[in-house]
Amino acid sequence: MTTPYKRLDKNDAAVLLVDHQAGLLSLVRDIDPDKFRNNVLALSDLAKYFNLPTILTTSFETGPNGPLVPELKAQFPDAPYIPRPGQINAWDNEEFVKAVKATGKKQLIIAGVVTEVCVAFPALSAIAEGYDVFVVSDASGTFDEITRNAAWERMARAGVQLMTWFGVACELHRDWRNDIEGLGALFSNHIPDYRNLMTSYSVLTAQK
Amino acid sequence: MTTPYKRLDKNDAAVLLVDHQAGLLSLVRDIDPDKFRNNVLALSDLAKYFNLPTILTTSFETGPNGPLVPELKAQFPDAPYIPRPGQINAWDNEEFVKAVKATGKKQLIIAGVVTEVCVAFPALSAIAEGYDVFVVSDASGTFDEITRNAAWERMARAGVQLMTWFGVACELHRDWRNDIEGLGALFSNHIPDYRNLMTSYSVLTAQK
Amino acid sequence: MTTPYKRLDKNDAAVLLVDHQAGLLSLVRDIDPDKFRNNVLALSDLAKYFNLPTILTTSFETGPNGPLVPELKAQFPDAPYIPRPGQINAWDNEEFVKAVKATGKKQLIIAGVVTEVCVAFPALSAIAEGYDVFVVSDASGTFDEITRNAAWERMARAGVQLMTWFGVACELHRDWRNDIEGLGALFSNHIPDYRNLMTSYSVLTAQK
Amino acid sequence: MTTPYKRLDKNDAAVLLVDHQAGLLSLVRDIDPDKFRNNVLALSDLAKYFNLPTILTTSFETGPNGPLVPELKAQFPDAPYIPRPGQINAWDNEEFVKAVKATGKKQLIIAGVVTEVCVAFPALSAIAEGYDVFVVSDASGTFDEITRNAAWERMARAGVQLMTWFGVACELHRDWRNDIEGLGALFSNHIPDYRNLMTSYSVLTAQK
Amino acid sequence: MTTPYKRLDKNDAAVLLVDHQAGLLSLVRDIDPDKFRNNVLALSDLAKYFNLPTILTTSFETGPNGPLVPELKAQFPDAPYIPRPGQINAWDNEEFVKAVKATGKKQLIIAGVVTEVCVAFPALSAIAEGYDVFVVSDASGTFDEITRNAAWERMARAGVQLMTWFGVACELHRDWRNDIEGLGALFSNHIPDYRNLMTSYSVLTAQK
Amino acid sequence: MTTPYKRLDKNDAAVLLVDHQAGLLSLVRDIDPDKFRNNVLALSDLAKYFNLPTILTTSFETGPNGPLVPELKAQFPDAPYIPRPGQINAWDNEEFVKAVKATGKKQLIIAGVVTEVCVAFPALSAIAEGYDVFVVSDASGTFDEITRNAAWERMARAGVQLMTWFGVACELHRDWRNDIEGLGALFSNHIPDYRNLMTSYSVLTAQK
Amino acid sequence: MTTPYKRLDKNDAAVLLVDHQAGLLSLVRDIDPDKFRNNVLALSDLAKYFNLPTILTTSFETGPNGPLVPELKAQFPDAPYIPRPGQINAWDNEEFVKAVKATGKKQLIIAGVVTEVCVAFPALSAIAEGYDVFVVSDASGTFDEITRNAAWERMARAGVQLMTWFGVACELHRDWRNDIEGLGALFSNHIPDYRNLMTSYSVLTAQK
Amino acid sequence: MTTPYKRLDKNDAAVLLVDHQAGLLSLVRDIDPDKFRNNVLALSDLAKYFNLPTILTTSFETGPNGPLVPELKAQFPDAPYIPRPGQINAWDNEEFVKAVKATGKKQLIIAGVVTEVCVAFPALSAIAEGYDVFVVSDASGTFDEITRNAAWERMARAGVQLMTWFGVACELHRDWRNDIEGLGALFSNHIPDYRNLMTSYSVLTAQK
Repeated sequence: MTTPYKRLDKNDAAVLLVDHQAGLLSLVRDIDPDKFRNNVLALSDLAKYFNLPTILTTSFETGPNGPLVPELKAQFPDAPYIPRPGQINAWDNEEFVKAVKATGKKQLIIAGVVTEVCVAFPALSAIAEGYDVFVVSDASGTFDEITRNAAWERMARAGVQLMTWFGVACELHRDWRNDIEGLGALFSNHIPDYRNLMTSYSVLTAQK
Repeated sequence: MTTPYKRLDKNDAAVLLVDHQAGLLSLVRDIDPDKFRNNVLALSDLAKYFNLPTILTTSFETGPNGPLVPELKAQFPDAPYIPRPGQINAWDNEEFVKAVKATGKKQLIIAGVVTEVCVAFPALSAIAEGYDVFVVSDASGTFDEITRNAAWERMARAGVQLMTWFGVACELHRDWRNDIEGLGALFSNHIPDYRNLMTSYSVLTAQK
Repeated sequence: MTTPYKRLDKNDAAVLLVDHQAGLLSLVRDIDPDKFRNNVLALSDLAKYFNLPTILTTSFETGPNGPLVPELKAQFPDAPYIPRPGQINAWDNEEFVKAVKATGKKQLIIAGVVTEVCVAFPALSAIAEGYDVFVVSDASGTFDEITRNAAWERMARAGVQLMTWFGVACELHRDWRNDIEGLGALFSNHIPDYRNLMTSYSVLTAQK
Repeated sequence: MTTPYKRLDKNDAAVLLVDHQAGLLSLVRDIDPDKFRNNVLALSDLAKYFNLPTILTTSFETGPNGPLVPELKAQFPDAPYIPRPGQINAWDNEEFVKAVKATGKKQLIIAGVVTEVCVAFPALSAIAEGYDVFVVSDASGTFDEITRNAAWERMARAGVQLMTWFGVACELHRDWRNDIEGLGALFSNHIPDYRNLMTSYSVLTAQK
Repeated sequence: MTTPYKRLDKNDAAVLLVDHQAGLLSLVRDIDPDKFRNNVLALSDLAKYFNLPTILTTSFETGPNGPLVPELKAQFPDAPYIPRPGQINAWDNEEFVKAVKATGKKQLIIAGVVTEVCVAFPALSAIAEGYDVFVVSDASGTFDEITRNAAWERMARAGVQLMTWFGVACELHRDWRNDIEGLGALFSNHIPDYRNLMTSYSVLTAQK
Repeated sequence: MTTPYKRLDKNDAAVLLVDHQAGLLSLVRDIDPDKFRNNVLALSDLAKYFNLPTILTTSFETGPNGPLVPELKAQFPDAPYIPRPGQINAWDNEEFVKAVKATGKKQLIIAGVVTEVCVAFPALSAIAEGYDVFVVSDASGTFDEITRNAAWERMARAGVQLMTWFGVACELHRDWRNDIEGLGALFSNHIPDYRNLMTSYSVLTAQK
Repeated sequence: MTTPYKRLDKNDAAVLLVDHQAGLLSLVRDIDPDKFRNNVLALSDLAKYFNLPTILTTSFETGPNGPLVPELKAQFPDAPYIPRPGQINAWDNEEFVKAVKATGKKQLIIAGVVTEVCVAFPALSAIAEGYDVFVVSDASGTFDEITRNAAWERMARAGVQLMTWFGVACELHRDWRNDIEGLGALFSNHIPDYRNLMTSYSVLTAQK
Repeated sequence: MTTPYKRLDKNDAAVLLVDHQAGLLSLVRDIDPDKFRNNVLALSDLAKYFNLPTILTTSFETGPNGPLVPELKAQFPDAPYIPRPGQINAWDNEEFVKAVKATGKKQLIIAGVVTEVCVAFPALSAIAEGYDVFVVSDASGTFDEITRNAAWERMARAGVQLMTWFGVACELHRDWRNDIEGLGALFSNHIPDYRNLMTSYSVLTAQK
């Protein structure tokens, strides 16, 4: 009756970043742009921090959809990069699926723009092929709340696990002792409230 | 435990537009009227663009519920048009069900007013008879968010897939290369942000 | 994987009104009081209109929870009325369950205050005993949206169908031709927008 | 202590449309894009309907700000059109001010993107030079509600009258008898609820 | 620098109800319809309770705007009733102004639909002629919050006092001892929370 | 054109608490009850902390409005306590005005329930008699945001300064060095975030 | 297809309070701080009232996350207290799991900060080991609504029952007659509206 | 009756940053933390870009309020930095006022935490001494919207001009031709939507 706990494992996870393109981003209105930008970059930073195989893909990037945001391109210079010639569902692109398979990972962490299409379509396809799919809901954006909620409902009912970048980072890391400074830096760079806690803490302890 | 991915197929889908009547539309308050009007017309345009068999039906259109909005009537002059003499659930009307069966399609894309009645009732009935049902949630409207959420929950739990017009268009189209201009025009006419991207793009590339 | 369509049937449905008491109503803050009052009275009116067996119950009505709102008491002078001496879950009160069983109905339409307790507890108990349960979500109220959403989730996952008074009325009535004036009056009395449609319509048609 | 009623007069009013450019529009997030687009086009239509002298201006339209939206350009082919080479406040552009003065009008109706800059700056400058300024608040957009509210406060305190396109149309028209069909068409094209009223009305009266 | 306290006086106040018409009410979307209906009827009841001269007016009631809501017509059978042949600002109608002057009152309590036009225009005109104007903001409705806020700002800056029906009733009544039952009944009929307080109170004190 | 800075002075200020009664509090729906309760108690605590003369008054406390909340009664056992026999505007009660005058203070800090009546009426009356009035807006509550905003507008335009309990405390205290522990305790008891800062700080500095 | 009703039983339930630390609390922004503080303390009070075995745990409390809030420490001086040296999921800490097992209870009531990590991780782990898990959603907090909703969806789909502290208290108590005063005091201390009801009631009945 | 247009002049403006401290920032809940952080840093960047004299001050930075956020300290290493020993209103600190006067500027641009105290108090004091004050409302934060709105009302009525960082930058810059790249970089770094426009633009024009 219920889904068993599928837990993210940093040795078995890959990240798929789908269509975070400069033009398409202007369509995202279900989340504040400063916050959304931060979430996408946080996801990108955690992918790199945990050394997860990462795949980039875009849709028609020479047209109005615009180029991939430069920060993502710069962050993963050696990652598979598949500019799709036309397929809307990235999973319909053979090269993309081949790249996913080449990672050898069973768990797919997906984010993209827009949620109900560029994220939901490959997420549903991947589940149909037996992958465990984790959608990073706060690094995925779309037109409005109605669209987001409908997309979440469709994905969740198909078995997608809805997470956010912070939950993904914590579930991958498991234990602070694996690297306190690294995880702390990731949080400090992307959670202003946490940065403030660290600032106050370090000043107070330095005073001793 | 989970629903498998049922993917829209333009060769196996029909559209049912239920009770978008001038009077009933005044009941819709869970979505802004400018936006709702745009969504309904976008769905109508995509039905025509993909050449999907479309069925129109109304409830008591000679009474306070008012006539079908003229744009829909004009868009589908040859579509089956079933003014129901009294049945609240369109599926209780034999002529309507006959028209649905006559399409020979297995996938039903449904939108209407109000969501928890005119949409939910035939959606639940159609599922009970083995159809795959996709409700276009942003082209369906009702009294308020409580009502919408309750209706979504009831439908989703029965197996309805909740989508929006943009997701429907993308899942039907599959690949931009099938027709770039046609899909682009559909988006430009109904997504102001996308229209702006196209405007900027065309001016810049024309300058070259 | 999904719940089959259980459709309300006016010959097989009873209404349970749980703890709509003058004191407890001050706890309801997830819905505007004017709107909530209207919804509760609309549910009461439809119960009477469809002649559904109706059961009233209260919790500690001689204490701070206060008396049942007088309109409900007046509307159902001959209905079973069970002032519970202490049981929080009405289903723990034998007299209440006996009254429910005495109706001989299989479908229970439940509303009350507060949603996650006075509604959810008997709803979950009734399902466990094999009843079909329909909660009238907009005639049930509670502290805030977090509480409401958690209660809905718990109930829906247990098989409760979430509805609103308007959907219940429409599903029970099935066909306008069963009684146009009666249903029209019910809607006119409880949906200002519908009343306005009827006003305009009747003036215009009277002018002919 | 209070501002006297300055009433719009169609013989003494001009319209200034400031920086409704395809790129800048992606910055507007204090109002839904479907609704905003409708409001801007409604203002444009009323300017033409009332035959008000209209002035178009843009900021850096060959750069990222993008071109003026084509609909406005098409609507006013003979209007003064001032692509500003750099001045952020349109009033700092001599040609613009000259065009305003050339209209010979005392009342300026201003809308633009973004509210606190492209609208507020010339509005404040025009007031300082003795004009009566009416800002069309729902055809002007900006980043978020905080920004909008601050801009409104600053403008209102300086004497700007805050209006919306519908109020402007009504105050200019004064009496329906001046042209029932024309004003009705304007409302029908830009207010879905009004269009529905007209649809129901015309069908019912045609039936007589 | 500030406006002195102009206090409502039941011997010097008249009520103007402007364009509460069945069709126009479908345009009101800045306030829930159940609540709005209650507020308008509450204002109507207080006008009658305090025996204030009341004037009714409508705009084009034989067209799509629809008839005055019947409850208001029924409540004030002998009140001046001015169906305006075309003037949008009621103050432009000589008969209306004459009726206002005939009341001999200096304080005008105004409510209507829509706020920025049917309310704001006569309110601004009346102030210009020296009346003290009190707008009943919660018995006046319009398209959305942007429109309402702009209208409030324009009116308040011109000297209009923004009130709500409850504040008007309290300021007119001054002292409960003038009539406890009458005011209590008014509140009980239009404030569900107050009705509940009275229900609990009366039951508890009756038990003594 | 603008109001000069009138600054609260602990030697010239008195506090008026108007109608915080157990029954009337159920009418307050423009602020969450946990938060509102905290704000009222914070205001009460600061009144005592700064030793400000405080006056309590109630309206019909033996009827449905209910008794003054016991915490306030307990906090100010020796304060003037004026249960008004009927006057809605406390300023119409001679005993109340006499008590205000007896404080010899020029600055009146007012809070109460409901904002547009029990607060606004005496605030406007006090200003008319030359007092400086500071309304504690977050310790005053009413039916909804429309009512609150209208009341704020009316009061502010008459010269009332709108503040919140925290601002009042800070403006009265002027300098932390006057008493660090006392003010810190006040904040810790009523601002959870500040309490947390103090907890972390004290643990960290204790560790040294 | 649906989850059977698992009902809380005070003889079979334990409470797990996870990471309510002074620093981490500054991350909670999906619920007002006054309200959240009240909810956490209400949960703590009910745990004590029902004498439920309670386990406290913290994450890195000597770093920026800060110490456990003192009220919880004081409330449960003899409870197992497990400051985790690094494990993010409390269930990864053997001592914690041992403490849970030592309670001998099958039903786990969990709350903590932040919802999608400190609550969701052990909740999912506990379910995987066969426990019945009840998450107290209003005593758990996190960054924003997107994060909360995603966490709820993930937990609910895995079988977690979402509740609130009030529902937990009522389901544990079962019958008011078990102890009217005790439960009344719990509600009075944490529900201002209920406290007001009790105040009015006790004054009125004392007058008899 | 109205305030004349006081326009920011980069040769006559200074910036005051008041109490942006790591601890106090946890009190800010009227604006999302990612967005607020961005706004504060944007203001800091524009102060540096326009070379405006900038003054930093803090309140009790060695206590729970915490240290100034390091980015501000680093940005203005040579700016006057006044850690106030106790004065809540920075204007009560002689050293601070001396630093302000030493700038020789007449226009003060103020931002800080929390709005109604650390910003409003010195803003009101500065106006009383004849300065023109511009509050950067989106780089100032406080507890909630009620508090913010009350603070805005109090400040605006005293003559403060409410702006946002973007408006300040535009009004100071006056003409893009003064430095296109510099202003573009400022916008690109702090407005994700503008950054996207620049990305798309530069890619498209580079392709030529």
